[in-house]
Amino acid sequence: MVTLKLIITMNRKELIEQIRTKKSFLCIGLDTDITKIPKYLLDTEDPVYEFNKQIIEATKEYCVSYKINTAFYESRGLAGWQSLIRTWNELPKDTFSIADAKRGDIGNTSEMYAKAFFQAESSGMSFDSVTVAPYMGADSVKPFLKFENKWAIVLGLTSNEGSKDFQFLPVAEETMLFERVIQTVSGWGTNDNIMFVVGATRGESFLTIRKHAPDHFLLVPGVGAQGGNLQDVCKYGMNKDCGLLINSSRAVIYASSGEDFAEAAAAEARKVQNEMKLILESM
Amino acid sequence: MVTLKLIITMNRKELIEQIRTKKSFLCIGLDTDITKIPKYLLDTEDPVYEFNKQIIEATKEYCVSYKINTAFYESRGLAGWQSLIRTWNELPKDTFSIADAKRGDIGNTSEMYAKAFFQAESSGMSFDSVTVAPYMGADSVKPFLKFENKWAIVLGLTSNEGSKDFQFLPVAEETMLFERVIQTVSGWGTNDNIMFVVGATRGESFLTIRKHAPDHFLLVPGVGAQGGNLQDVCKYGMNKDCGLLINSSRAVIYASSGEDFAEAAAAEARKVQNEMKLILESM
Repeated sequence: MVTLKLIITMNRKELIEQIRTKKSFLCIGLDTDITKIPKYLLDTEDPVYEFNKQIIEATKEYCVSYKINTAFYESRGLAGWQSLIRTWNELPKDTFSIADAKRGDIGNTSEMYAKAFFQAESSGMSFDSVTVAPYMGADSVKPFLKFENKWAIVLGLTSNEGSKDFQFLPVAEETMLFERVIQTVSGWGTNDNIMFVVGATRGESFLTIRKHAPDHFLLVPGVGAQGGNLQDVCKYGMNKDCGLLINSSRAVIYASSGEDFAEAAAAEARKVQNEMKLILESM
Repeated sequence: MVTLKLIITMNRKELIEQIRTKKSFLCIGLDTDITKIPKYLLDTEDPVYEFNKQIIEATKEYCVSYKINTAFYESRGLAGWQSLIRTWNELPKDTFSIADAKRGDIGNTSEMYAKAFFQAESSGMSFDSVTVAPYMGADSVKPFLKFENKWAIVLGLTSNEGSKDFQFLPVAEETMLFERVIQTVSGWGTNDNIMFVVGATRGESFLTIRKHAPDHFLLVPGVGAQGGNLQDVCKYGMNKDCGLLINSSRAVIYASSGEDFAEAAAAEARKVQNEMKLILESM
């Protein structure tokens, strides 16, 4: 059994403060695949949790956020859900926690998903935020916004090949679907409870995004393993509050496959944080 | 602990055969909310599972499919995930099982979601199908199609109020987003591994849907509690193989809040099945 940690949510002001203090806007993605972690951990009771715990301990001074990709936990059934809850429990109170779950359904069902990720007395977990898919519209997103100091991070423009299938479709003169999504979703909440997922593969896309969401925080996957470039993203995507959480998953957590995995992850996170520090200082 | 049931998948031919044999195309939605089940069940070890087991036993002769809405289970954390696996284990082998999970992410993550719902040796569950959100495009859907005799049921036109926000946007001359989604997604698989979710609130919409997907099976929520009409849906949506799975959740499973809940659910399911029988006979 896990004991329930003290729930502290993180609002926008506190997140900005953390970015200034740590000189980092790095989010580390715990996409932890049990087949990719060092073999010696497989002898422990909960290898994925052990791995995550050491990664978190080693990297927490270099990042302001952790993103847990729920798919990697769900794939392992009950044992995986156990690892997920235990890992949530290890997340430092001064980091912004993201359940990367891509949920979204009709109202009464989205409410249940919100409980799953926000309401610890119900599910054993209370993340600061959850990623949400926009296709089903307002009533699929709004239930996540009813929780005080919690965030919905809605898919805007994703970084994968398939983003071209629908997100770039023209839905009005000079407006593509992803732009309309960002315009419309922005109206359902505020800068204090909505962020957008914006892929890093095209730096210039951030100019378009910032036209529609100048003040929102953007969660940016795709730097590193997926090929995005940090300098470009910052050049086009930063705002006066920084406004970016840049996620790195595989490049950090699998920096080494040996027993030194945590140190190697720390070194990689520190490297990115150093680069972010220079960018923040030149703002 | 649960023991692993024999995995038998259901292909298109077998599903059509079941529809003919049972004279039903009813799917019962197990959106089981622990606050809505009869109070006396709360004394059992796993009340949601007990409820579902009795509902399944009472209704299985009247339906060809069960749809489990995962949100209702996830909201209860580890205990809920336990109920989910146990309930999956109770689903009769001759019914088509649907994990209504609305998943979808970049390729390597969708692969993990597919394992969660299709690969019993990994997750403890192996549904025939899972519902998938289309926003992230091809690589978010295709991993679900790699599993033999498994299905992706992709969101086309949903039945909720929010469907108006994006799904009806014009993306080309005389083509709305939901149409383009159906056209494009159809090309990623076949009638044997793709279905579409099409809401029942507008009977005439099925004319448009059938232009793009004449042969696909459609999963139709929204009959009953959400206001859709069975006769209209069948009039405009049926094809030569029936081609419809009509879902009813609340109207069936909460037909009574007393100790007779299973009998009441059976009576409600039988009523719908009788109506379906007449429709099938008049085809």
